[in-house]
Amino acid sequence: MKRPAITSAIAFITLALIPAGCGDGAREQADLIISGGTVVTVNAEMQVIEDGGIVVSGGEIVFVGSRQEAEKRYKAGDKIEASGKIVMPGLVNAHTHIPMVALRGYADDLPLEQWLKDDIWPAEAKEVTAEHVYKSSRLAIAEMISSGTTTFNDMYFYEEEVARAAKEAGMRAVVGEALVTPKSPDSQDAAEELERARDLILKYKDDPLIIPAVTPHSTYALSTDLLKEGISLSNEYGTPLHIHLSESAGEVATIEGKYGMRPVEHLDSVGGLGERTVCAHCVQVDGKEIALIKSRGAGVAFTIQSEMKLADGVPPVPAMLAAGLKVGMGTDGAASNNDLNMFEEMNSAALVLKAVSGDPTVADARSVVRMATMGGAEVLGLEDRIGSLETGKRADIIIIDLDRPKHVPMYEPHSHLVYVVDGCDVSTVVIDGRVVMRDGELLTVDEKKAMEEVRQIAEDLKKTRPDN
Amino acid sequence: MKRPAITSAIAFITLALIPAGCGDGAREQADLIISGGTVVTVNAEMQVIEDGGIVVSGGEIVFVGSRQEAEKRYKAGDKIEASGKIVMPGLVNAHTHIPMVALRGYADDLPLEQWLKDDIWPAEAKEVTAEHVYKSSRLAIAEMISSGTTTFNDMYFYEEEVARAAKEAGMRAVVGEALVTPKSPDSQDAAEELERARDLILKYKDDPLIIPAVTPHSTYALSTDLLKEGISLSNEYGTPLHIHLSESAGEVATIEGKYGMRPVEHLDSVGGLGERTVCAHCVQVDGKEIALIKSRGAGVAFTIQSEMKLADGVPPVPAMLAAGLKVGMGTDGAASNNDLNMFEEMNSAALVLKAVSGDPTVADARSVVRMATMGGAEVLGLEDRIGSLETGKRADIIIIDLDRPKHVPMYEPHSHLVYVVDGCDVSTVVIDGRVVMRDGELLTVDEKKAMEEVRQIAEDLKKTRPDN
Repeated sequence: MKRPAITSAIAFITLALIPAGCGDGAREQADLIISGGTVVTVNAEMQVIEDGGIVVSGGEIVFVGSRQEAEKRYKAGDKIEASGKIVMPGLVNAHTHIPMVALRGYADDLPLEQWLKDDIWPAEAKEVTAEHVYKSSRLAIAEMISSGTTTFNDMYFYEEEVARAAKEAGMRAVVGEALVTPKSPDSQDAAEELERARDLILKYKDDPLIIPAVTPHSTYALSTDLLKEGISLSNEYGTPLHIHLSESAGEVATIEGKYGMRPVEHLDSVGGLGERTVCAHCVQVDGKEIALIKSRGAGVAFTIQSEMKLADGVPPVPAMLAAGLKVGMGTDGAASNNDLNMFEEMNSAALVLKAVSGDPTVADARSVVRMATMGGAEVLGLEDRIGSLETGKRADIIIIDLDRPKHVPMYEPHSHLVYVVDGCDVSTVVIDGRVVMRDGELLTVDEKKAMEEVRQIAEDLKKTRPDN
Repeated sequence: MKRPAITSAIAFITLALIPAGCGDGAREQADLIISGGTVVTVNAEMQVIEDGGIVVSGGEIVFVGSRQEAEKRYKAGDKIEASGKIVMPGLVNAHTHIPMVALRGYADDLPLEQWLKDDIWPAEAKEVTAEHVYKSSRLAIAEMISSGTTTFNDMYFYEEEVARAAKEAGMRAVVGEALVTPKSPDSQDAAEELERARDLILKYKDDPLIIPAVTPHSTYALSTDLLKEGISLSNEYGTPLHIHLSESAGEVATIEGKYGMRPVEHLDSVGGLGERTVCAHCVQVDGKEIALIKSRGAGVAFTIQSEMKLADGVPPVPAMLAAGLKVGMGTDGAASNNDLNMFEEMNSAALVLKAVSGDPTVADARSVVRMATMGGAEVLGLEDRIGSLETGKRADIIIIDLDRPKHVPMYEPHSHLVYVVDGCDVSTVVIDGRVVMRDGELLTVDEKKAMEEVRQIAEDLKKTRPDN
């Protein structure tokens, strides 16, 4: 990294003028210095800094450069030594339903309709309560933090409980109350659904960590009237509009049959495709739809493991990137994944996009790392706040331990992150400047308690299962 | 699990006859009891035993059943408590080149020819020495054991060094000296290659852990004469015949152009397709070739992550299984993977086979777990020795720790193994009755030393790299 020569000169002069024994006086006070390690910045040049230094003050990154420079210019109350490790931006899970961890592996390897109708929906009908959503969210947050995710974009019911759990754990979250027709599990009718969505916006619109969104489920699971009202609400407050879009061929056929156009076109026709729109999946989109999404400035969040597992197909990500779309990655819910591990998403995306295109050069490691961090930030409209390690951004930082046989050798860190590193290698996580996991220990969630509580939810679900 | 009633009756009578304080006299002496846990047997019924018990004596599994029964009938010098964990057969990596860990991530995301000619082959020309093969093998063995693999099937040069490293670490291995034309890096000519292959067979043909094989590289990288001599050598000693077969469309075109038939047919035409043949990859095989492989009793070892990464395509595994083929799974070398983690192979296989077929019911979790264990054992002709937890088999057993948020809940263990568990969750590994990793600590390989040695090999390689 290039640094203006003047900085060093000033530092030198200042040091020379102060009396011996008071050398610290020349150094600015900060909260945290992360020293050493291979810093993967994900800045515009995808710069990597060896033996780097990152300084955090007031939750913000105030310096990114060499360790030497960081330690010369700053002192801090807390210091993390990262030699021999990778330091990178926290991962952004751009589409998920975190309370579904309680249904992780509840049913697998089934045709989509059967899976939903015989297993998932009956289970949700019993399982979705405010208490369960809160408890499951806590477990999911523990899982996400411990595997390197620092921001997630969620859509579910009782979403205020998801927001509460995230806020308590100090995790960054975009939250939206799902709008469905005829009514959601936490509402009596569409009016109440909209009221809950508005309440969530009002509660969190000025929060530093929780970003409220409006989340109509899809173009097929709610009435066009409710969809339009959701779009209006999103426009009223300038929130993200997060929606499932073109996930499966079946969905495309349904929407074409009903409206005479494909899902992306239909959403656009009701005014739902804009710069704040987060289109989840987009597996079944053609070139015309990609161009339409681009022209409206909307973003795409694909969830490759879930899309593969449900046999939805493989989204045309290379074409999206070539068209200049904002593209992020997510895990989807744990019922169809079956975890919330963004490193596995990176690995699967890099591999399957090559396999189905027959081109080993697509989804190269740098593109994939960028999608899982900065790409997700752009899709969520948070590119000024997170997604890369650059001065002025909020300090969402993860540190990856490389002290295992599989990590030797490491020739190039982006390749290593995509093809070798797993969530379990993450050792330390900082969100908004706060250390929420340190050397493998979660500091803001009681993970033992969270595990025990969700084990109990699962035991209860098993007992009432029809095939039990 | 059903147990004959007579056993309990005898135990009861014996116990009743011995004086108080000598209760142990009624129990048979064994070496190791693994008590508790969810035992995934991979027997013919894919039986799962909750709160199970496994007893090992003389390196052999002498009992599989309930914890209660195991503890009633046996006492042992060593006991492993496995409550809350999964106990399963060790994984079988059915196709790899383990010394290539030194080239892990050396070059990625490139067209196959460019990758081989510009990067891998020049690096191998410098890197492949007996000393490097030994050091790299030690690191690879540390990586494999710590991620749950207990048997690997290898093809490389200086393969006696691979065998030595495996033997020292107490790991089960099928080893073969690669036959290539005009000559391999460790030989002057074809005659010496064959001599080295024969020496390896003579040295290890009666070894309990190391199984020698004959490994002609492929149908395209050696002369038909040398291929035929390799087949003769394999027949002479009754060894496995391990060969790359139909990995890419380019290979099929080459062989068709040269011999007027596809690779599987060509191999068969020279007598190379039989019950001991291990066909690695088989990505580009049609229905006729699958039927031919089946009729000859040969087995297939596919390596899904490498095949995806190199954009070879996706092998028609559901059709192979439907035809009744023996099918196992491998990682291939770490240069094209980039690790030796069989849990990632399971995950990727289950997902991509669904994605490309459009059918979410194919490659179900039980089938995938079976391929990674018993399937691999069958392909290598070791089905009487390993691959499942059944009495009379050698004790190759792994234990998986579930004390992390991502492991809650677990409704069904096969699903959990394929869709959630990663190599890093393996805590204890037993090979041939010997505990080679305990609670995360490797006992038979000095992993720190192995890592340091391969780091040095990589540093040297980097220095001499043309683009450095």
